[in-house]
Amino acid sequence: MRFEVLILGNSSATPIYERHPTSQVINYNEQLFLIDCGEGTQMQLSRYGIKSNRINHIFISHLHGDHYLGLVGLLSSMHLVGRKSALHIYGPAPLEEILNLHFKYSETVIRYDIIFHTNNPEKEEVIYESRMLSVTSFPLIHRIPCTGFRFSEGKRNAILRADLVEDLGIPAPYYSALKRGMDYVDPSGKVYPAAELTFPAPASRSYAFCSDTVRHPIYLNSIQNVDLLYHESTFLHEMVDRAKETFHTTSLEAAEIAKEVQAKKLLLGHYSARYKTLTPLLEEAQAIFPSTELSMEGKWFLV
Amino acid sequence: MRFEVLILGNSSATPIYERHPTSQVINYNEQLFLIDCGEGTQMQLSRYGIKSNRINHIFISHLHGDHYLGLVGLLSSMHLVGRKSALHIYGPAPLEEILNLHFKYSETVIRYDIIFHTNNPEKEEVIYESRMLSVTSFPLIHRIPCTGFRFSEGKRNAILRADLVEDLGIPAPYYSALKRGMDYVDPSGKVYPAAELTFPAPASRSYAFCSDTVRHPIYLNSIQNVDLLYHESTFLHEMVDRAKETFHTTSLEAAEIAKEVQAKKLLLGHYSARYKTLTPLLEEAQAIFPSTELSMEGKWFLV
Repeated sequence: MRFEVLILGNSSATPIYERHPTSQVINYNEQLFLIDCGEGTQMQLSRYGIKSNRINHIFISHLHGDHYLGLVGLLSSMHLVGRKSALHIYGPAPLEEILNLHFKYSETVIRYDIIFHTNNPEKEEVIYESRMLSVTSFPLIHRIPCTGFRFSEGKRNAILRADLVEDLGIPAPYYSALKRGMDYVDPSGKVYPAAELTFPAPASRSYAFCSDTVRHPIYLNSIQNVDLLYHESTFLHEMVDRAKETFHTTSLEAAEIAKEVQAKKLLLGHYSARYKTLTPLLEEAQAIFPSTELSMEGKWFLV
Repeated sequence: MRFEVLILGNSSATPIYERHPTSQVINYNEQLFLIDCGEGTQMQLSRYGIKSNRINHIFISHLHGDHYLGLVGLLSSMHLVGRKSALHIYGPAPLEEILNLHFKYSETVIRYDIIFHTNNPEKEEVIYESRMLSVTSFPLIHRIPCTGFRFSEGKRNAILRADLVEDLGIPAPYYSALKRGMDYVDPSGKVYPAAELTFPAPASRSYAFCSDTVRHPIYLNSIQNVDLLYHESTFLHEMVDRAKETFHTTSLEAAEIAKEVQAKKLLLGHYSARYKTLTPLLEEAQAIFPSTELSMEGKWFLV
């Protein structure tokens, strides 16, 4: 079951060196989710071959321009290419007022339903839930109200021992039940225990997105044990004072956080315009947490 | 004296094929002006090597997203890179309300002065005037209030006959006065008529920007005799009904307008997403008005 993250933008507030402001696509089992929507997101989606109308849920962390200024354009383009299905937006309360003001003055009546969900910047909450995936928002500490997001996979199915079930002549329509742990009983009443016909289910995976935030214990519990942690790393640690002042994190701090919460892998991002080359940020983090990668635009990362 | 237009975006509302929404830079004698500011304008400025802080005047035609959604991001970036000088914005009245709402919720206090000028969508008005250049806004006919802009050069200086003035021993500090038509009188009282020491001043140049609009006689007077006319040409003429319905113009109509107002040259733009190749639009216009070019992103056009 696919669970991957595509980076559309990895820049902090001033886009430079062909880097774009924050936006990411999550592909979970061919369902697409968008996190943040900086200026130019619709062009980045088109550049990387993502049809915007496959996205049904958009999560906005906070109302700094580099995290949401692409939203009005994206919503309008979805409208222009004939979208009909409802779109869910999860964001800070005033976002709805901002969108409505734009639509008012451009006299745009969006043809599809926009269902707005207000994120709570004060405490962790489940904001989306399907059979196989849930999304929680949790407080980050930034200059203005800001939330991170955690995408958590539900209990996965066990893996069917295909050779065994075939040899035993178990009818195919029962395979799905076996994978979910239900035993098979044949017409004579003989029980075939699911545990014997399957390998244990793979562990459930999770992805956490933390941008923008100063390093703070408040959100550590929300990102505990994630498989992939995206954590902003705007500065090198030599700029830690500036990071604190602007409510951002350094690369070294991001690595220490990843280690502390026992993440499997760390993804850096939200790079300051002062860094033309990003290797120093990567090296600083890898010295603490070796399993670190740079988020690079256009690249998919496995969760 | 330089008078050129750089195309930053030539797309209509749905950006595609790496085309961007509308924005143009005018360079008049090394003063930079920005017309419209679609999403991604700040990235396009950076791609084409234009320092945003050299721009002191921004003109916004109307409040459809593809003409102004890049403005908040550009203003914020100007702030972040330390702009101090005042910025003049000329646009529809509600634009100020939209900008203020963004700044309110992002808790941004812009460090430089923004001086807002409201464009009148009902009649032609001079909105900017310096010694050598004036800008007028004039009504276009679109789905919402919209204005075009005309950049008109003032009376140009005559050209000094350098060999002659040197031979006559006229002191260099008087050259500038001669070029402006003032005679030189030497210490003995002898008069040297400016007319004899100069070639006639070159004609004053003008550029008009018309986007978005349905073809309509109301604005013809405002663009009469321009040297360079940018006129939107969203569709081929086979789509003329769709053009009228959406208050846009066809390529053939743009050419007929250029001919009617006796423009020297026509620049097409605001291409619909349905056209991957633009040659048919160009050919349709050239059949009526041969001196037509396609506005291409990154290209400078002489006025």
